Amino acid sequence: MNETLTLARFVAESRWGDIPQTMRHEAKRALLNWIGCAIGGCRDETVERALAALDEFSGPRTSSLIGRREKLDALHAALLNGISSNILDYDDTHLRTVMHPTVPVAAALCALAEHRPVTGAQFVQAFVLGIEVGCRIGNAVSPWHYAHGWHISGTCGIFGAAAGAAKLLGLNTQQTAWALGNAATQSSGVRAMMGSMGKSYNLGHAAHMGLLAAVMAEQNFTSSEHGLEAPAGFVHVLGDTPDLDELTRGLGTTWELAANAYKPYPCGIVLHAAIDACLQLRAESAFAADEVAGVAVRMNPLALEITGRNNPSNGLEGKLSVAHVVAAALVHGAVGVAQFTDACVHEPDVVALRAKVTTQPDASCDTAEAHVEISLKDGRRLAHHVAHATGSLEKPMSDADIEKKFHDLAASSRSQCNAWDVIEIAWSLERLNNAAKFVQAAVPEFR
Amino acid sequence: MNETLTLARFVAESRWGDIPQTMRHEAKRALLNWIGCAIGGCRDETVERALAALDEFSGPRTSSLIGRREKLDALHAALLNGISSNILDYDDTHLRTVMHPTVPVAAALCALAEHRPVTGAQFVQAFVLGIEVGCRIGNAVSPWHYAHGWHISGTCGIFGAAAGAAKLLGLNTQQTAWALGNAATQSSGVRAMMGSMGKSYNLGHAAHMGLLAAVMAEQNFTSSEHGLEAPAGFVHVLGDTPDLDELTRGLGTTWELAANAYKPYPCGIVLHAAIDACLQLRAESAFAADEVAGVAVRMNPLALEITGRNNPSNGLEGKLSVAHVVAAALVHGAVGVAQFTDACVHEPDVVALRAKVTTQPDASCDTAEAHVEISLKDGRRLAHHVAHATGSLEKPMSDADIEKKFHDLAASSRSQCNAWDVIEIAWSLERLNNAAKFVQAAVPEFR
Repeated sequence: MNETLTLARFVAESRWGDIPQTMRHEAKRALLNWIGCAIGGCRDETVERALAALDEFSGPRTSSLIGRREKLDALHAALLNGISSNILDYDDTHLRTVMHPTVPVAAALCALAEHRPVTGAQFVQAFVLGIEVGCRIGNAVSPWHYAHGWHISGTCGIFGAAAGAAKLLGLNTQQTAWALGNAATQSSGVRAMMGSMGKSYNLGHAAHMGLLAAVMAEQNFTSSEHGLEAPAGFVHVLGDTPDLDELTRGLGTTWELAANAYKPYPCGIVLHAAIDACLQLRAESAFAADEVAGVAVRMNPLALEITGRNNPSNGLEGKLSVAHVVAAALVHGAVGVAQFTDACVHEPDVVALRAKVTTQPDASCDTAEAHVEISLKDGRRLAHHVAHATGSLEKPMSDADIEKKFHDLAASSRSQCNAWDVIEIAWSLERLNNAAKFVQAAVPEFR
Repeated sequence: MNETLTLARFVAESRWGDIPQTMRHEAKRALLNWIGCAIGGCRDETVERALAALDEFSGPRTSSLIGRREKLDALHAALLNGISSNILDYDDTHLRTVMHPTVPVAAALCALAEHRPVTGAQFVQAFVLGIEVGCRIGNAVSPWHYAHGWHISGTCGIFGAAAGAAKLLGLNTQQTAWALGNAATQSSGVRAMMGSMGKSYNLGHAAHMGLLAAVMAEQNFTSSEHGLEAPAGFVHVLGDTPDLDELTRGLGTTWELAANAYKPYPCGIVLHAAIDACLQLRAESAFAADEVAGVAVRMNPLALEITGRNNPSNGLEGKLSVAHVVAAALVHGAVGVAQFTDACVHEPDVVALRAKVTTQPDASCDTAEAHVEISLKDGRRLAHHVAHATGSLEKPMSDADIEKKFHDLAASSRSQCNAWDVIEIAWSLERLNNAAKFVQAAVPEFR
């Protein structure tokens, strides 16, 4: 009955030396992946409208909006960067819980780091701890929690933001427990919001409220010290048969960040194996799109149910269309942000090839697996089987893959930041005297 | 499947003439009762710590903290006034749901009224509509919701704040539906917080987030249009067997504000009948406290279980002690804020009389009922039975009672506001050209 305090003590007493080298590196991968997503999403109408609403309420404008010239107070900057970095559905995934773990933690910590200076090492450490706490709480209430209708990236992400911010503020164990308790009672987000701006709002809200919970705890604003495990606390009220042991088992020896996955393509993760196969076949065998007679895709039935849409009418629908991603991959030889614009969805070559894609459900396929067979007009048949898509835990994106993704995102937006600078700073994050340089490299003013 | 839109349309299309005269008057009673609670709680350490945390993040300081000289931006003022007005547990109760309905709505609307000028009539109308929407949503998920661990005053109060603010901002039906949807996904608050500062925070949070939801909807920040009734929407995710019909049945003809109750004494509502009986007996028969040989109280067994504490060690514990309230009523002839200070709990006359109080559970008693029999040393026996305590729906507090309570609260704090001014402005609220005068009368600077 002391899980909240145990987690709080773990965070408060953690030292830099307790964070393994591998996790320090993984943190930088997660953060580079994340800041690219924020740059890519920063001009979305969702961000514009949220900013239009909040601008008049902003306090001292200490904290940057990633990819933009505007600043807001730290609390609202956390909210906005949380929104922008989730909009493209291109951020990372803690596969066990389907949480997008980095958004709330990184958005809160970046906003705070500009408000109160901290070193890069402090920032990396707080990030690793935030991810750990948020994902452990997600594990404790999964899978019922998400299935029941909770948007877990928000509901559990808030704890990551609170724990990370508590560490960055140097809170003691008692205060950190209060931060977690205050987060428990601010935790919200329902899946009904998916398909609206409210979807990304859920993650921004988690960043905003997690940071607020920590800032209030710093002033000894009390909450229950058993906010997670109390009978009317988080895991029982928002969980059905929670596994409390998940909160503390192996704490400090296993790391949830090690189970984090990055998306190579900005679309539904169940499509990634098919895209891998198409890009591989196109690279191996020189053929033009108009030489293709047909493409047959065999995939997991459930995955096909979600993505079987043959005629997407816009970029957003393209993200859940196997026919579209196959056509785009074969026509363009790449599947990035540009392949999910409305323009690409209506591009004649892509439309023509989409009509030649057939799908077949195959119950023997895993959701991360695909078989693709391309028939060319000259009679050749090219086949490829992907057992584990790029970005899966079995076949993680390389550091170079993550850099390439960042460049694609930076180029796709009007952020005008220097992509090379951001990448260089990201990889040297733990050596920075001032962690704010990271987020400040990702705004136009930096140059 | 259109409950969200139906409620949104009801709010957006409501005209001043649709609000019955009785409800306009009830709104003013609720608001006077509420602002007194805020004045009484405004110097609590809970408010001090929240303000210490939030001050550095405040935007333009448009909105007053009731009873204090400081101002904050409207969003954070809503939060702080929501906290201060709930701290004393003296605010109103929608008995069917045990919601404290006014706090989130009034805190949001007062903060907003100083940010964007509105008339008193607009303010009263928005308040009535906010109470209606919040309580209807509470009805739809009760009683499971609270029993399961949700702090309903926060979780459902947010909808009242969102609906009221949407009306004050003049949002259309579509935008109001988005405000309700955004509120649905920000709704939070667990009962584990009770006994900590997090308890009042839950209500302040509802005011803050409800206002934010409306402000974002004004800029067309979208959410689900079925935020309440969607399969992964509020009533299904936070309700067990919700009754959707409660959301819309009789809309515009019945009014939840009519089912709102005010507390005459700042302590557990199950003690109110015993206090009524003691005050009545003391007023009828002239006797001094030291003439009392014994006091026998018969009450509902469950009510006694909660309040059977004989020796409270501080004012907070005194709020749940039948022996204390009986002794304080007989010694002081009044039960107000002063009777729940630590000083009163330790006052020798009160301590002595408390020892003479005996209690007897009586299963035939309702929780709002009490039998009190006082034995005097001269042999006299004085008995009184209260079937319905003052403040119950059967025996509501009179307007004069509410004024008296306000004076008691204003005198108890260091607010230095002119109580007579506040009362006069409250009763003429719907005739004000600028509703902000109401909240501004309740701050020291006004004089």
